Amino acid sequence: MTGIIIFGSAGRMGRAVYEALVSSGAHLAGVDQPDIDNNPRRDPPPRVPLEQLARGGGDVIIDFTSPDVLEENLWAAQVAKKPIVIGTTGLTDSHHAMIDRAARSIPVLWSANMSLGVNLLAALVKDAASRLSVEWDIEILEMHHRHKVDAPSGTALMLGDAAAAGRGIDLDSAKVTVRDGITGERQYGDIGFATLRGGSVAGDHQVIFAAEGERLELGHRAEGRVIFARGAVRAAQWLVGKEPGRYTMAQVLGL
Amino acid sequence: MTGIIIFGSAGRMGRAVYEALVSSGAHLAGVDQPDIDNNPRRDPPPRVPLEQLARGGGDVIIDFTSPDVLEENLWAAQVAKKPIVIGTTGLTDSHHAMIDRAARSIPVLWSANMSLGVNLLAALVKDAASRLSVEWDIEILEMHHRHKVDAPSGTALMLGDAAAAGRGIDLDSAKVTVRDGITGERQYGDIGFATLRGGSVAGDHQVIFAAEGERLELGHRAEGRVIFARGAVRAAQWLVGKEPGRYTMAQVLGL
Amino acid sequence: MTGIIIFGSAGRMGRAVYEALVSSGAHLAGVDQPDIDNNPRRDPPPRVPLEQLARGGGDVIIDFTSPDVLEENLWAAQVAKKPIVIGTTGLTDSHHAMIDRAARSIPVLWSANMSLGVNLLAALVKDAASRLSVEWDIEILEMHHRHKVDAPSGTALMLGDAAAAGRGIDLDSAKVTVRDGITGERQYGDIGFATLRGGSVAGDHQVIFAAEGERLELGHRAEGRVIFARGAVRAAQWLVGKEPGRYTMAQVLGL
Amino acid sequence: MTGIIIFGSAGRMGRAVYEALVSSGAHLAGVDQPDIDNNPRRDPPPRVPLEQLARGGGDVIIDFTSPDVLEENLWAAQVAKKPIVIGTTGLTDSHHAMIDRAARSIPVLWSANMSLGVNLLAALVKDAASRLSVEWDIEILEMHHRHKVDAPSGTALMLGDAAAAGRGIDLDSAKVTVRDGITGERQYGDIGFATLRGGSVAGDHQVIFAAEGERLELGHRAEGRVIFARGAVRAAQWLVGKEPGRYTMAQVLGL
Repeated sequence: MTGIIIFGSAGRMGRAVYEALVSSGAHLAGVDQPDIDNNPRRDPPPRVPLEQLARGGGDVIIDFTSPDVLEENLWAAQVAKKPIVIGTTGLTDSHHAMIDRAARSIPVLWSANMSLGVNLLAALVKDAASRLSVEWDIEILEMHHRHKVDAPSGTALMLGDAAAAGRGIDLDSAKVTVRDGITGERQYGDIGFATLRGGSVAGDHQVIFAAEGERLELGHRAEGRVIFARGAVRAAQWLVGKEPGRYTMAQVLGL
Repeated sequence: MTGIIIFGSAGRMGRAVYEALVSSGAHLAGVDQPDIDNNPRRDPPPRVPLEQLARGGGDVIIDFTSPDVLEENLWAAQVAKKPIVIGTTGLTDSHHAMIDRAARSIPVLWSANMSLGVNLLAALVKDAASRLSVEWDIEILEMHHRHKVDAPSGTALMLGDAAAAGRGIDLDSAKVTVRDGITGERQYGDIGFATLRGGSVAGDHQVIFAAEGERLELGHRAEGRVIFARGAVRAAQWLVGKEPGRYTMAQVLGL
Repeated sequence: MTGIIIFGSAGRMGRAVYEALVSSGAHLAGVDQPDIDNNPRRDPPPRVPLEQLARGGGDVIIDFTSPDVLEENLWAAQVAKKPIVIGTTGLTDSHHAMIDRAARSIPVLWSANMSLGVNLLAALVKDAASRLSVEWDIEILEMHHRHKVDAPSGTALMLGDAAAAGRGIDLDSAKVTVRDGITGERQYGDIGFATLRGGSVAGDHQVIFAAEGERLELGHRAEGRVIFARGAVRAAQWLVGKEPGRYTMAQVLGL
Repeated sequence: MTGIIIFGSAGRMGRAVYEALVSSGAHLAGVDQPDIDNNPRRDPPPRVPLEQLARGGGDVIIDFTSPDVLEENLWAAQVAKKPIVIGTTGLTDSHHAMIDRAARSIPVLWSANMSLGVNLLAALVKDAASRLSVEWDIEILEMHHRHKVDAPSGTALMLGDAAAAGRGIDLDSAKVTVRDGITGERQYGDIGFATLRGGSVAGDHQVIFAAEGERLELGHRAEGRVIFARGAVRAAQWLVGKEPGRYTMAQVLGL
């Protein structure tokens, strides 16, 4: 039975991972913020010393925290020589470089979204984008709960990367995230993002391919965070025993 | 049979008005850009002298042009003492002040959207917003064709005004049109806008009220521009013979 | 603090009511199937003697069971002289006659859906239907989880009743629930129903008004059962101390 | 320049084919109901003798009629030794057997939907169905205009066939087209269909894969019939010069 350590255990996703563990074949080996039974609150509890936590029991770490503690988290995993599954979003290129460096000594899997549905959606979006000409405008829409602090969502960007890869381009060269005022006509090749925030929406995403007279709409709705948490536990179980390196959910899910 | 003069006759909406005239009880009395049978093109034909056109035959003007010629159009209508229906979007406060001044001497109706469905939607949105507490986050989504040059659409802003009116606030104090990067949590009372552009979509709008655990979604889909054009012709027929003043589609439609 | 007795306490909705109680100002006064902490199972536990349960502590009953035990439940409420909130769907006219009879001696509230969002939606649908001509075809779509045993959902029928009332007709004379094979053209005045079943969807509903060239779409999404349970608790608290009679959620919610 | 003969030229799709021809590299070589410029009417004009029409000028036939004249149409194409593209829906197994027989002597292509978007959607649906376990319930939703006489639409059945093929089963063994009254729980493996009718909707389709906690939604919206007509003309141009046999839109589109 895989022992799992949760980093970010007092957050929304950390709590969902704890709940997913209960009904899986894994067990909880440690948490960084030990008030896991209380309600979420704005001032999270202080973290326990990570290195000590990571060196203790447990086979693998699941990390849902924030970009500013990523370096610290990776360091603890490397010191303890334990695989780490990271679900933190809002990362920059320099964060991804940190992950690449850590992946030289331990197995690391980062994903913006660990549900089966979204990962399959990304594969379908890539396929569709590769078959459709640039006359099919690509737009990506997402809605999340009122507490989400970054936009577009990590999952929306992941779907944008899939669309760009299907077209053989880089997302950064095509991404449009702001439309406000006199924008002028849409440019061919743009990949547009639109963001909705409100209520308690766990995460809805839709990729629209719009041509003259027709639209293809490929989307996913998450009813709760548990599907992401289940995916993280599945990834953690899969990562135990792997060689050092950087892995993807597509590999875990066999897509 | 009402005689209708079209300003902006070479544009997308001007052509749709021409088509709507054919199946209505009105007839075409004049156009400002006389190539109405050709395909749209990027360089529109020069306009004929408006004053002369307006002074000729015809009972009422329908104007779908651009903000920069609004003053000229209103002047021609006033000189000819003819009512004018204006569907141009992207107007500023100073444009609305021009309309108010013209309305002292002629009947004027401006609307961002002249379809029955959207005007009824706005009434329902106002009603819903007045009954729901501020814990129901309000978001407005719209999609239009790739050639649209302004964002959010005039119709989206009209729906935002309806929501704000229902809440007893001013839209300007609540409007959020950009979400990009680290935005922080959504603020209570915000009215968010999201914009999609692509293909040939005539105009889709949705107002979402999102609370803890549930969402109310009120939307409208236009299959083509003809519904807007039919509404404009209906408004023009209604406006003939009215006293000088500024009128609304709600009045025309009896909402 | 209102004491609440749950009938159907081992079912999906009964469990959700129990969870809603925890975060409300009410307390649990009794249950008919006392295994409330276990997982749902296909063979529900036997019910305790209802009359005895109803006569014990508690101010009001919340009943989410099945049509075949409605008579028994109403009897127990009447014997104990306690108000009863009923959320059971799939009722026939004769079940409603039973409810009317019971309402002569106790306060009774039956509703197919106790969420604020759906009840507001019904009010908007009635309003829209009263303002649109019969050229606007009315269609009602719903999706629920794979375990739901009746179709269309009680909520879909409630929305259909609202649309019919807005039109000044009776739903039974207009309802179309089957389209299969060569159906012929749609008849003016029909109110069509379409049913989707799958996964764990708590309840999505959409009322579509479709005319030539445009569609108005009024819908609601429930993310979980807790919104229905919260509504039931709110209704129960409201019902305590009322005169005998039959009440509605619109009254509870002040719509 | 390919010469095209239209069977069903007075119908909705026949007229759309005529319009699509105008902007394509093909020309009109003959029609079976020569009132192509008038408005649609309930009593269609009588057909001209098909054999004579087919033997005259023109390289290929496009047929959008009704199942009862399919045999006659195929016979005329065979006599004239001309390829035929068929878009008629509502066909039975015996109609498909007729098509197979005709395909021994001439090239034949039948498709329920000739748009690029829908054919790509079918490929994506097949792919998704092959990767997801039977715990993902499959549901297919469609909406069409009020004049459509068959249900579910031919395109919905085409998408159902794609889903069934992805699962390695036959659609007939899994298809559920009626849900009305006490249906009992959904069965694993079912492929459900839901039908909406109203207004002037050209054709909207959505395939939903629903699992515990998440949904994948793959859909297509047609803004008008012209996309189907363009596809038919493209298929006709592609079919000229082919060997006798039965062909598919997937071949035409290179999917």
